Amino acid sequence: MWPDRRLVDLFGVTHPIIQAPMAGSVDATMAVAVCEAGGLGSLPCATLNGDQMRAGIGIIQQQTTQPFNANFFCHDPAKPDAAQDAQWRARLDPYYKEFGLGDDTPVPTVDLPPFGEDACAIIEDLKPAVVSFHFGLPEQSLLDRVRAVGCKIVCSANTVREARWLEERGCHAIIAQGSEAGGHRGMFLSEDITEQAGTMALVPQVVDAVQVPVIAAGGIADGRGIAAAFALGASGVQIGTACLSTPESLVSDLHRDALSGAEDDQTVITNAWTGRPARGFRTQLVNDVGAITDAPPDFPTASGALRPLKNKAESEGSAAFSSLLAGQAAGLNRVAGAGALVSMLVSEAAEQFERLSRS
Amino acid sequence: MWPDRRLVDLFGVTHPIIQAPMAGSVDATMAVAVCEAGGLGSLPCATLNGDQMRAGIGIIQQQTTQPFNANFFCHDPAKPDAAQDAQWRARLDPYYKEFGLGDDTPVPTVDLPPFGEDACAIIEDLKPAVVSFHFGLPEQSLLDRVRAVGCKIVCSANTVREARWLEERGCHAIIAQGSEAGGHRGMFLSEDITEQAGTMALVPQVVDAVQVPVIAAGGIADGRGIAAAFALGASGVQIGTACLSTPESLVSDLHRDALSGAEDDQTVITNAWTGRPARGFRTQLVNDVGAITDAPPDFPTASGALRPLKNKAESEGSAAFSSLLAGQAAGLNRVAGAGALVSMLVSEAAEQFERLSRS
Repeated sequence: MWPDRRLVDLFGVTHPIIQAPMAGSVDATMAVAVCEAGGLGSLPCATLNGDQMRAGIGIIQQQTTQPFNANFFCHDPAKPDAAQDAQWRARLDPYYKEFGLGDDTPVPTVDLPPFGEDACAIIEDLKPAVVSFHFGLPEQSLLDRVRAVGCKIVCSANTVREARWLEERGCHAIIAQGSEAGGHRGMFLSEDITEQAGTMALVPQVVDAVQVPVIAAGGIADGRGIAAAFALGASGVQIGTACLSTPESLVSDLHRDALSGAEDDQTVITNAWTGRPARGFRTQLVNDVGAITDAPPDFPTASGALRPLKNKAESEGSAAFSSLLAGQAAGLNRVAGAGALVSMLVSEAAEQFERLSRS
Repeated sequence: MWPDRRLVDLFGVTHPIIQAPMAGSVDATMAVAVCEAGGLGSLPCATLNGDQMRAGIGIIQQQTTQPFNANFFCHDPAKPDAAQDAQWRARLDPYYKEFGLGDDTPVPTVDLPPFGEDACAIIEDLKPAVVSFHFGLPEQSLLDRVRAVGCKIVCSANTVREARWLEERGCHAIIAQGSEAGGHRGMFLSEDITEQAGTMALVPQVVDAVQVPVIAAGGIADGRGIAAAFALGASGVQIGTACLSTPESLVSDLHRDALSGAEDDQTVITNAWTGRPARGFRTQLVNDVGAITDAPPDFPTASGALRPLKNKAESEGSAAFSSLLAGQAAGLNRVAGAGALVSMLVSEAAEQFERLSRS
């Protein structure tokens, strides 16, 4: 049924629908369900240690013979900056006091290594069909090793310039992440979110600029969006927010509630949660601190000082300090199992292709 | 060929492609060309006085028997604020000095009345098939008069909430203006551009929220975008930026050059040019003043103090103070006559419908 089979052929999947790897919100269970339904399930490995990665990939390989994707971050490691950390903690101090968190409340250190030697060795060993990166690519020697074991390499681009950069470095497919998308912007060659295009404008310009298949992401939550993505020239779609309302999703009840009542104008791109721009529901923190400011320390360390606040507020039923990541089409979310969601998306897309052709 | 004929039937056009009314950049010539090619040509009346409106509409009615659209603004009139005007002039003073404009340079008063009694009387007299509004609707008594003479009423919505508001007041069709769109945001119930969704996310949510036909706008510049809009559930498209590269367009050579070299990440939404948020190519003014700030006086008076600067800079080949309005898909622009452009868009869309159905 797919009008463009390049991604289907490249990945060896039945349907060119990629479940977005959403670090912290997804584990192997969702990936397996998506793979078994014919899509490409993804395991977000960025926040996992080596043992957790091996466990997650192992579960997928035991439970499905279908291809799957392992996803990693390629951010610049956070530079330690005690002064900025202290300023950030001080900025949050009124909230600490409001929630009865004393000055002696331990502030956890939150840091993540980018894709490196250890993760690469696991990939070489376990060989997922697809390895996707966010925030750019790892250094060339690591990338060569991933390619050498036969993994297809995918990465997100927020601009045409980033897409060209990725193609020059040998990506097999490129995700064009429009500004509607929930979660972290993949941006790595620019720092200005105001320049980034919506999916409708970005996808055809990326398609025109590169030879490899393009995966549309951002604002796609049902068969209408999938059909639209193919009309724009995409060879597949990556769907994130729509997967967060499935029972397989690991998000909190507060997050699930926000998704179930979502409207089109409730999300905002902010760096207040982690230090990097990410789209999610607007919260008190974002209103007070500002959406994009210099206040938060480097990604992902900003979330350290927020964690005690987030935990305390959540225990009192408030998401004021939580990052409820979601895209602008969250209002289209349906509650269904991840496998059933893929089947629904496929049949809805088929219906749209049929409807558009009846004319 | 159109998979949804509701707008074709409502307007009595051959093709559900609306040429966006772009005040200052379009006159009757383009509208006639678009109408004769089967689309809906639009005359931007917001910046015209009564005689100019009558002349423009007269030319269209003499040169085509096809339906056309007359467009008006429904902004709140600017509140005189001498202090803010003086601050704005002072903010621009370094540029006045740089361009050799003395303190005695006259600052023109730029103001525009919203749609009112005079314009309404002309509409009642000349009865265009379609009347479209931007920045909300006129007061109910005026709207009733427009409806009473048989004009179809259309208005832009930037959010689902605005779309519902417009439907409740009797709009016959609603333009869902995604964040990709060039020119002024139509926003009238909210003031925060960061909340506004991209076309891919906005259109299906508006389609689900209202009964009337929805016209997709923002990031649509070729047949791929048109087919995508129909996939999302739209009954038609409004195309602006793509029309600016036609010979019928009135834009400056500087503007035309910017369009011909456009890339996806060169535009920004700013209120620096007029006092209301509008998308166009990023310029020195935007970089220096900031994209969205409290500095500019009320729409459209902010452009008064800019005008001498703009004129002087343009005479020296610089667009640093010009509002080169454009959307995020300007990179897809082709140079063709307005009528030929419509024909090209129709055949490209047909090709996409055919391609999507072959699967």
